[in-house]
Amino acid sequence: MKRRVALYPGTFDPVTNGHLDIIGRAVKLYDKLVIGVARNDAKNPLFSFDERVEMARELAESVAGDTEIEVLPFEGLLMHFAEKVGANSIIRGLRAVSDFEYEFQMVGMNQRLNADIETVFLMADPRHQAIASRLVKEIAKLDGDITPFVPELVKARLLEKFV
Amino acid sequence: MKRRVALYPGTFDPVTNGHLDIIGRAVKLYDKLVIGVARNDAKNPLFSFDERVEMARELAESVAGDTEIEVLPFEGLLMHFAEKVGANSIIRGLRAVSDFEYEFQMVGMNQRLNADIETVFLMADPRHQAIASRLVKEIAKLDGDITPFVPELVKARLLEKFV
Amino acid sequence: MKRRVALYPGTFDPVTNGHLDIIGRAVKLYDKLVIGVARNDAKNPLFSFDERVEMARELAESVAGDTEIEVLPFEGLLMHFAEKVGANSIIRGLRAVSDFEYEFQMVGMNQRLNADIETVFLMADPRHQAIASRLVKEIAKLDGDITPFVPELVKARLLEKFV
Amino acid sequence: MKRRVALYPGTFDPVTNGHLDIIGRAVKLYDKLVIGVARNDAKNPLFSFDERVEMARELAESVAGDTEIEVLPFEGLLMHFAEKVGANSIIRGLRAVSDFEYEFQMVGMNQRLNADIETVFLMADPRHQAIASRLVKEIAKLDGDITPFVPELVKARLLEKFV
Amino acid sequence: MKRRVALYPGTFDPVTNGHLDIIGRAVKLYDKLVIGVARNDAKNPLFSFDERVEMARELAESVAGDTEIEVLPFEGLLMHFAEKVGANSIIRGLRAVSDFEYEFQMVGMNQRLNADIETVFLMADPRHQAIASRLVKEIAKLDGDITPFVPELVKARLLEKFV
Amino acid sequence: MKRRVALYPGTFDPVTNGHLDIIGRAVKLYDKLVIGVARNDAKNPLFSFDERVEMARELAESVAGDTEIEVLPFEGLLMHFAEKVGANSIIRGLRAVSDFEYEFQMVGMNQRLNADIETVFLMADPRHQAIASRLVKEIAKLDGDITPFVPELVKARLLEKFV
Repeated sequence: MKRRVALYPGTFDPVTNGHLDIIGRAVKLYDKLVIGVARNDAKNPLFSFDERVEMARELAESVAGDTEIEVLPFEGLLMHFAEKVGANSIIRGLRAVSDFEYEFQMVGMNQRLNADIETVFLMADPRHQAIASRLVKEIAKLDGDITPFVPELVKARLLEKFV
Repeated sequence: MKRRVALYPGTFDPVTNGHLDIIGRAVKLYDKLVIGVARNDAKNPLFSFDERVEMARELAESVAGDTEIEVLPFEGLLMHFAEKVGANSIIRGLRAVSDFEYEFQMVGMNQRLNADIETVFLMADPRHQAIASRLVKEIAKLDGDITPFVPELVKARLLEKFV
Repeated sequence: MKRRVALYPGTFDPVTNGHLDIIGRAVKLYDKLVIGVARNDAKNPLFSFDERVEMARELAESVAGDTEIEVLPFEGLLMHFAEKVGANSIIRGLRAVSDFEYEFQMVGMNQRLNADIETVFLMADPRHQAIASRLVKEIAKLDGDITPFVPELVKARLLEKFV
Repeated sequence: MKRRVALYPGTFDPVTNGHLDIIGRAVKLYDKLVIGVARNDAKNPLFSFDERVEMARELAESVAGDTEIEVLPFEGLLMHFAEKVGANSIIRGLRAVSDFEYEFQMVGMNQRLNADIETVFLMADPRHQAIASRLVKEIAKLDGDITPFVPELVKARLLEKFV
Repeated sequence: MKRRVALYPGTFDPVTNGHLDIIGRAVKLYDKLVIGVARNDAKNPLFSFDERVEMARELAESVAGDTEIEVLPFEGLLMHFAEKVGANSIIRGLRAVSDFEYEFQMVGMNQRLNADIETVFLMADPRHQAIASRLVKEIAKLDGDITPFVPELVKARLLEKFV
Repeated sequence: MKRRVALYPGTFDPVTNGHLDIIGRAVKLYDKLVIGVARNDAKNPLFSFDERVEMARELAESVAGDTEIEVLPFEGLLMHFAEKVGANSIIRGLRAVSDFEYEFQMVGMNQRLNADIETVFLMADPRHQAIASRLVKEIAKLDGDITPFVPELVKARLLEKFV
């Protein structure tokens, strides 16, 4: 049998229940899942690079089951990072109404950069598809209740940011 | 009979014929329509908060019919404002090619914040669906003719901005 | 205060949890809800016209709250029926991935047939958006478990059809 | 390491270069790939059930690499067949412009039928995404050149059908 | 200067104001416009092949301006017909919510059948985009008013069909 | 015969194989093609206005065939520039997953600004549809191989920028 490694990349600013849903699906399909936390300074993240990596580490354990999970920070080209960690697949969450233009371009261009690494789309539970990190932060900032959207750990951290 | 109150939120920078089309439809369905003008400083509006509220007030009257209309400024979480004004519904203009990802996320998350307030989508006349405040401002700035897109009042104000 | 009447039309072959979700939302917004069961012989329905009307009647009660609900069969042009029952609004369930071309055409053409009747889109809970009568029937026919998709009454009737 | 089995279902009337593209991607990700040829009499296929299975068998070999491939006919509920062959994943080809409503409904409903079987979307090379069995048959019937769309074997069989 | 010939194909069952809008745009861009009326018996048209050709002929004149227009019946492969009439372009009406999957497949496959014939998309006035022959027929059949959707000639013919 | 002039506007920061694909299609349909390079300082382009114009000039020649091509810088309103250069058509590349909301608004509003200038959509080869200038720059910046996406000239210039 082949050993299969998947890379799930993102900014994870912060991890939401939607991300955990996808991670929970991916671990069932692979021997190892690498969660790649992108630095993405240009996006001006709310949580620091270190905070995002650390939160992802704590939470990934909880849905890993018996699959090996590694949370790694990365900068630079996604496909280079995928090659470095030996990934066969890149995981993307597919929403009914994803930003499909962006996905289509990314996959089309990535296929030409390295034809051996597949992009694999998984669909979260419909309720989780509507969760966007950006909106979660906005709601938290405006004192709305974010309980349904993020795990307890993230909720606590978000509230600290907006005291 | 129940008293029905709807909230139509937006930045209204400035009000276009598309907004007035939706307002004209909403007033037929509700006993009271609250037009909530969002501060939205992050979007760097062309018109000041006060100017936007004032223009919306002048124009809303013209399409109100015999329905009570109130134009109110707001900051903070939309659902909190909706609760405060006693709204049963939040009105959104549905375009054939809306930014559906955003709408889907907003509705999905708002349903969990307060399940008693419905998001209601109305569709403007096809000709008005193509009108975007952002493009109107761009056209005005570049000396294009904006007569078909905004009421006279707004046209005059826009031209003042770009003398 | 104005009296507001909405018409929710469909083939309802059979009623699903998705339909009941929309009905549950509509009753909160109107003084009366008419559920219009379309004959639609061309679609070759599984349940007879009478069966569909009767099932809709039994189920509508359960979500009506204190709103007046009437379940009526209809043939002919939707807008004529809407006029006949005195509807101000036609209710449509909006799915993240609706057959938008069809909706856009329907609304655009209906606006010209009678500009006083608005089409109002409501969005069901994300989990219910994925439920399609057509797939429910297919799953039932092939001995799959339809418990999550339809009320008990409909499940029993469907199973009878496929003994 | 876990043994991973994927099911790629379809009518395959006939197999196109688009299907082979997806199969070529799936075999890299799984230990075994089952190609499930659906009877689908309701769709009134051009090739008989036996012909479709046989063609798929001949062609699947050519892209299998060292992955075990099995081509099996099936009738009945997809999820039942997936359980029977021990699949962890169901493979779908994702096109930039898929019939997304259908996919969304299928995945949403299948998740509730068996939460342990994931639907996995792979994206073919952009050139292959545009190939539809339906159009290939139409072009062949009207004497158009189908060389770019199907393997030689299928081309020969199609031409026999339309002599 | 090059002589430019465009082909605008369709079933035209019957011609609507949406078709005439597109024709009116195409004649401004080409030296000759061929309107290709497809036999399309499989679609079970309401008007006979001859009736559709004849109606298109009468109406095309009215929007032709000084451009040469020819209305021709055709059967068989679209690209063969385009070659036969010497077309450089195939005209398609682009709606905000077209059946994009079909368009994408058609163009992708046609590009491979003959790379010298371009598919050119034009967008009708938003009000006309919503008009579908199928719905016009349905409304006429059910005694609705089709005045806003079709020219007088077609209206008269449609009413004759449904006396 | 009429003389036909098309305008293909863009930021061209830088020209990609996708742009050249569209240009190669447009030159077959028109007597003259004007490539309008927009200043677009607000987008903060990587290449200066002069560099973009110059690169477009060098590359346009290579696909012009015997059609007259002119590359011109422009600022201000697109429709004013189109009028100034005497364009009958504005060319847009249509991607399967374009930012359709933006296109729909642009066309709808431009139709009202000048009804005599048509917007004409052409579809690039599927492989080229996925190429976005923005992603090309990102890949180049991160040391990825951009050979499949841009002509040699552009590749050399991009590498200079990111030494």
